Amino acid sequence: MAYYETMFDQLDVTAAQLLVNDSSFRDKDFRKQLNETVKSMLDLRVIPIFNENDAISTRRAPYQDSSGIFWDNDSLAALLALELKADLLILLSDVEGLYTGPPSDPNSKLIHTFVKEKHQDEITFGDKSRLGRGGMTAKVKAAVNAAYAGIPVIITSGYSAENIDKVLRGLRVGTLFHQDARLWAPITDSNARDMAVAARESSRKLQALSSEDRKKILLDIADALEANVTTIKAENELDVASAQEAGLEESMVARLVMTPGKISSLAASVRKLADMEDPIGRVLKKTEVADGLVLEKTSSPLGVLLIVFESRPDALVQIASLAIRSGNGLLLKGGKEARRSNAILHKVITDAIPETVGGKLIGLVTSREEIPDLLKLDDVIDLVIPRGSNKLVTQIKNTTKIPVLGHADGICHVYVDKACDTDMAKRIVSDAKLDYPAACNAMETLLVHKDLEQNAVLNELIFALQSNGVTLYGGPRASKILNIPEARSFNHEYCAKACTVEVVEDVYGAIDHIHRHGSAHTDCIVTEDHEVAELFLRQVDSAAVFHNASTRFSDGFRFGLGAEVGVSTGRIHARGPVGVEGLLTTRWIMRGKGQVVDGDNGIVYTHQDIPIQA
Amino acid sequence: MAYYETMFDQLDVTAAQLLVNDSSFRDKDFRKQLNETVKSMLDLRVIPIFNENDAISTRRAPYQDSSGIFWDNDSLAALLALELKADLLILLSDVEGLYTGPPSDPNSKLIHTFVKEKHQDEITFGDKSRLGRGGMTAKVKAAVNAAYAGIPVIITSGYSAENIDKVLRGLRVGTLFHQDARLWAPITDSNARDMAVAARESSRKLQALSSEDRKKILLDIADALEANVTTIKAENELDVASAQEAGLEESMVARLVMTPGKISSLAASVRKLADMEDPIGRVLKKTEVADGLVLEKTSSPLGVLLIVFESRPDALVQIASLAIRSGNGLLLKGGKEARRSNAILHKVITDAIPETVGGKLIGLVTSREEIPDLLKLDDVIDLVIPRGSNKLVTQIKNTTKIPVLGHADGICHVYVDKACDTDMAKRIVSDAKLDYPAACNAMETLLVHKDLEQNAVLNELIFALQSNGVTLYGGPRASKILNIPEARSFNHEYCAKACTVEVVEDVYGAIDHIHRHGSAHTDCIVTEDHEVAELFLRQVDSAAVFHNASTRFSDGFRFGLGAEVGVSTGRIHARGPVGVEGLLTTRWIMRGKGQVVDGDNGIVYTHQDIPIQA
Repeated sequence: MAYYETMFDQLDVTAAQLLVNDSSFRDKDFRKQLNETVKSMLDLRVIPIFNENDAISTRRAPYQDSSGIFWDNDSLAALLALELKADLLILLSDVEGLYTGPPSDPNSKLIHTFVKEKHQDEITFGDKSRLGRGGMTAKVKAAVNAAYAGIPVIITSGYSAENIDKVLRGLRVGTLFHQDARLWAPITDSNARDMAVAARESSRKLQALSSEDRKKILLDIADALEANVTTIKAENELDVASAQEAGLEESMVARLVMTPGKISSLAASVRKLADMEDPIGRVLKKTEVADGLVLEKTSSPLGVLLIVFESRPDALVQIASLAIRSGNGLLLKGGKEARRSNAILHKVITDAIPETVGGKLIGLVTSREEIPDLLKLDDVIDLVIPRGSNKLVTQIKNTTKIPVLGHADGICHVYVDKACDTDMAKRIVSDAKLDYPAACNAMETLLVHKDLEQNAVLNELIFALQSNGVTLYGGPRASKILNIPEARSFNHEYCAKACTVEVVEDVYGAIDHIHRHGSAHTDCIVTEDHEVAELFLRQVDSAAVFHNASTRFSDGFRFGLGAEVGVSTGRIHARGPVGVEGLLTTRWIMRGKGQVVDGDNGIVYTHQDIPIQA
Repeated sequence: MAYYETMFDQLDVTAAQLLVNDSSFRDKDFRKQLNETVKSMLDLRVIPIFNENDAISTRRAPYQDSSGIFWDNDSLAALLALELKADLLILLSDVEGLYTGPPSDPNSKLIHTFVKEKHQDEITFGDKSRLGRGGMTAKVKAAVNAAYAGIPVIITSGYSAENIDKVLRGLRVGTLFHQDARLWAPITDSNARDMAVAARESSRKLQALSSEDRKKILLDIADALEANVTTIKAENELDVASAQEAGLEESMVARLVMTPGKISSLAASVRKLADMEDPIGRVLKKTEVADGLVLEKTSSPLGVLLIVFESRPDALVQIASLAIRSGNGLLLKGGKEARRSNAILHKVITDAIPETVGGKLIGLVTSREEIPDLLKLDDVIDLVIPRGSNKLVTQIKNTTKIPVLGHADGICHVYVDKACDTDMAKRIVSDAKLDYPAACNAMETLLVHKDLEQNAVLNELIFALQSNGVTLYGGPRASKILNIPEARSFNHEYCAKACTVEVVEDVYGAIDHIHRHGSAHTDCIVTEDHEVAELFLRQVDSAAVFHNASTRFSDGFRFGLGAEVGVSTGRIHARGPVGVEGLLTTRWIMRGKGQVVDGDNGIVYTHQDIPIQA
């Protein structure tokens, strides 16, 4: 109690001890008095701290005798919560909450919402928790009693000072006990897992289909999209209306709108994907390992993808059809602005998937809250593709062990060499910045060969940008020459009608600048000098390197990949615009006649490449 | 002070306050008395808590007047540490230690060891820390003063109760200040970074070489290995002697030994790799995007690899030559048993690398302590390949954001179908378990079709294993039939002369079992039924799936990949045995004539595949 007092003192809060006995609760007058006392104390802003009055307790073995009305601090807390009609009971433990097994076991999962009917039997309790005598068994018993008598209970860790605050702000910490919990459809960790496991099972069924049957699913989806154009439009209009009401920016609202024309062109792109050569099971390499022992490297689906995308609902259709084409299961989380549009598109698509595969092939994640749970499932989700802000991508990368495919930054450069065609340079520089200034493949830095200062080409380039409303910031050299403000950093992505300009010595200076400050997305050289161009193409270590073409071409559709799930600036797995191929992995298939290794004695390795039949 | 007292009280420790004044320190007698008082208190196990006696302080603006002997709690602490000849001064802050910039800036790095000459100028101090008045500037000033007067200082966070304990146990937390720090060659974070950056720079130079020059490096390395056979052997013998002295297992010592024969065969394998077609810059795909706009997908090096491997020193040569062949920079960490062998092999190899590339292409990491620092460098290291125990792989996966390629488990299955050739089945099952029982591609579970129980084939298989000393554990069905102990789990890797046996209904039962309990490494079917075999090959979703061949073939050398850096059970990037190809990524190269996107209006996309010239 002295400790509590001192601690509360630090916060200028008065605390007072109330010692109670099991037997007192049998007395109705005591219980009435207790309520009044606590009310008075709270009115006086005094915090009551309850404990059993051990000194005068008459029970034989306090804390072990469970015959009374309460028998430990947890049951006392539950009893008091009921007596005092508390709004909420928080039980603090030394672990984050109730787990499905011993918290030290990596297979144990935190239960966010306890449902008696579901969890009672599945939990295995470990040793008592170290602090206090209650242990988790006692806490759960007390929590269940209180919850089913109408007082919600949360068990959480007392180690983090912020947890109580988080509980009061309604954040999802610890384990919640509520009498109606079984009626809710809460997104629990096991729900997320169920979705992922179902997607994997369905994806295996999808893979077992013939190529023709997989193609037919895509054609059916395209038909279903066109057949449901009215329903889709109706739901989409509700999203659009909400967005306008909420005062969303015009450009954002425009991205949200699904016209019948857009739906038709989506259906067309799904049909185009259906027409593409089947990407699954393709033999990529074939080797005779030894006489009669043949090894094939074949393409195969990755498994289950989790894709988080922003407001455009057409992305859902593109991603879903890419996933089906590549034989993958899919979990999708769209932006909340497109909630209704995504829901109807998801329904139309999954309804068109035959029962032999199952609609659970594609799961629609509806709440942001589920994302952290999904990101933990590195054993059932194979790849995460975030399509959104830099912040979203970084946040996801920092919180998951699942591989992440995407780009955080798109700092693209155009280097204009001294041997450039001036008109071409102006055209490419303008297009690279202005065609869509906020795109990740838009130019953020213009590098210019120093000789172009003398012959006025630099000025022409600058004028081409400035006259179209582009704000320019200069590196140390350019800001002096052009008398423009100095850029704060070369590593900056404007995502707007603005860019950095710098003067470099030559192509080597440009390459060095790009390696130092770029994000390895897309970089371009404009030159008529073939040798310089090839040097740039060979040495710039970016996902896409262009000669005499706008950086804006760096895109799955423009590359001819059919559609894209995103652009990867990572170096592992897929790089640059990612279409179907990036959603595939490989399997090694070996066919023998009973060969064994036997210390490599029994076999003569030939390792002959076998041509692959087209 | 009341707070300190209460807190220490909880631990049954007595604390006492000592209030001192700046002016007192000018008095020699006071300083002598102070020493005696503190000594007496410590003898009595009383903890002195110092503070400035503000009430009687005469300075104008305490904490801001830096004219005195001390002027804040940090300088008071440094002063007292000196006066009392402390062994160590710990300054607790609200951040982990001293960073190169504001701790909130993700580019700031924690400095583990402060070297005045190196760090003084590079640090930019942010705002004062929130707690206390000292801030980091004051702490560093105090720490430098104390350290250069001979008292080592550590600045660390006071938020974690364990930090003081960690400091006392000599663990690496916070920032250490020591007067001799400049003389040490500490492995600091920036050292690790320097190594990685140097490796990347060298790798870019390596890539800029012609294919012939890269080939020559490998041939030079092969020659150097043979030319230095005596030196290598001498160093290796010292490792072997130490290992024997330390009582290392015979089999481990055997793996350590490098005979002249082994060195020759290593040189031969390096030459074989040199002879292989250049894997860099290969055109994998070529597309005409539009008239005069051609896109190529080309192979390119990943960048910088970090490979952690265990005791066999030959792995160093294999990995280094694979890295050079694939144009990558490399950081290598070998086992400490092979320390001297690794050092000499590293020297021989890097000495053979021409100056135009630089020996820093391959960095040898010598202490285990450096690994955590290296694993933080996700901006300069592209891929981590741990070759070692399950525990090592899991540990690395859990602590790094860098992609990790490897396998944690190797739970390989052999399924013997009812239509098997009995002799072949016995041969494959025996080889898969016995050729090298601890290998990751060894059979851990034998699945047998239920019909083979009747016709005694099951018994023959069991006998083949048991008679060779394999201990068998059964699944629920097999343990009853065969009267063998029940396996604790199907998800178990024995790594020894032991395996699990289970009876399954049919091929579907086997596939289901493998998906449920396998680790997607290598799985095999033994059958004469072609249709069943193809079903198994198509549906089993593992890195390698074999028909009528031992699982032991699942290996880079046996697959004909030349050498392997490891086996990947991940589904991203590379799968199964990983040779040169797994160390490559791609770049998209586009050559145009000034084409721009202009809202896709100005261009007609053709997207025609162009055949690739062989």
